[in-house]
Amino acid sequence: MAEIQFYWEDFEVGQVRDLGTISPTREEIIQFASQFDPQPFHLDDDAAKASVFGGLCASGWHTCSMAMRLMVTHFLQQTSSLGSPGLEHIKWPKPVFPGDVLRLQTTVLETKPMGRRPDVGMTRNLWEMFNQHGEKVLLMEGWGMFRRRHPAKVENA
Amino acid sequence: MAEIQFYWEDFEVGQVRDLGTISPTREEIIQFASQFDPQPFHLDDDAAKASVFGGLCASGWHTCSMAMRLMVTHFLQQTSSLGSPGLEHIKWPKPVFPGDVLRLQTTVLETKPMGRRPDVGMTRNLWEMFNQHGEKVLLMEGWGMFRRRHPAKVENA
Repeated sequence: MAEIQFYWEDFEVGQVRDLGTISPTREEIIQFASQFDPQPFHLDDDAAKASVFGGLCASGWHTCSMAMRLMVTHFLQQTSSLGSPGLEHIKWPKPVFPGDVLRLQTTVLETKPMGRRPDVGMTRNLWEMFNQHGEKVLLMEGWGMFRRRHPAKVENA
Repeated sequence: MAEIQFYWEDFEVGQVRDLGTISPTREEIIQFASQFDPQPFHLDDDAAKASVFGGLCASGWHTCSMAMRLMVTHFLQQTSSLGSPGLEHIKWPKPVFPGDVLRLQTTVLETKPMGRRPDVGMTRNLWEMFNQHGEKVLLMEGWGMFRRRHPAKVENA
């Protein structure tokens, strides 16, 4: 595991991070869909051509999972992350096709201490993933919990 | 593919559906995490014991993906589903451990025609997944698009 570079105090509203790229193969798209989302447009070329997507495309959950892989490898592993309580506003504006090159960008939207844990802070982050044409394929907001470098002083303690 | 039993007109606010169970093995949890969410508490017993989760547990994205599998196999394949534009309010209140038996329940929260497509309607659904102890491990709300049995009459057409 990488050494911790970023604690909660290191995040500021407006910070934008480029978290690299990931590119799913046709085989990976079909494998994920076979296991978790066996709808015809994720499995079969002819069914996909006849669908609203126009071609074989990745499960939205596969797209989210690929974004998470970039988030962990290129960011969370260098932070004091303690996980996430949840996410809001997941949208898949465009389908992901085999061979697409997907780039993840995150923006810090909000940062606040965690009331009941003086050693932990929270951040709200925008996740945006774009394909090689600059089209947005994933959009969501997630809360993250991070250990603080210096715990807050607790009043009346 | 199964025959279509349910079109948009067949969904009513308050309908509750039990969509069966799924149970991840330790190997499946580690395999998913290795590919998409390689954080120590999803991969390594000792690291997981030292974490807030208390033991090796599934990636939240794995939990979502397992819920999707139940949704597709036990519901969407029997419907006129056209996919989903997105989800809201994803929460993972409790961790998922190897061997947990996870049951998905859905509730129709809202149903409305799709303004710009007279042949399509939308529903908003609550997804709740419970473990074998009755604890909620996943909670989210998703919009679904479904073809209508009878397209709406378009005025001024």
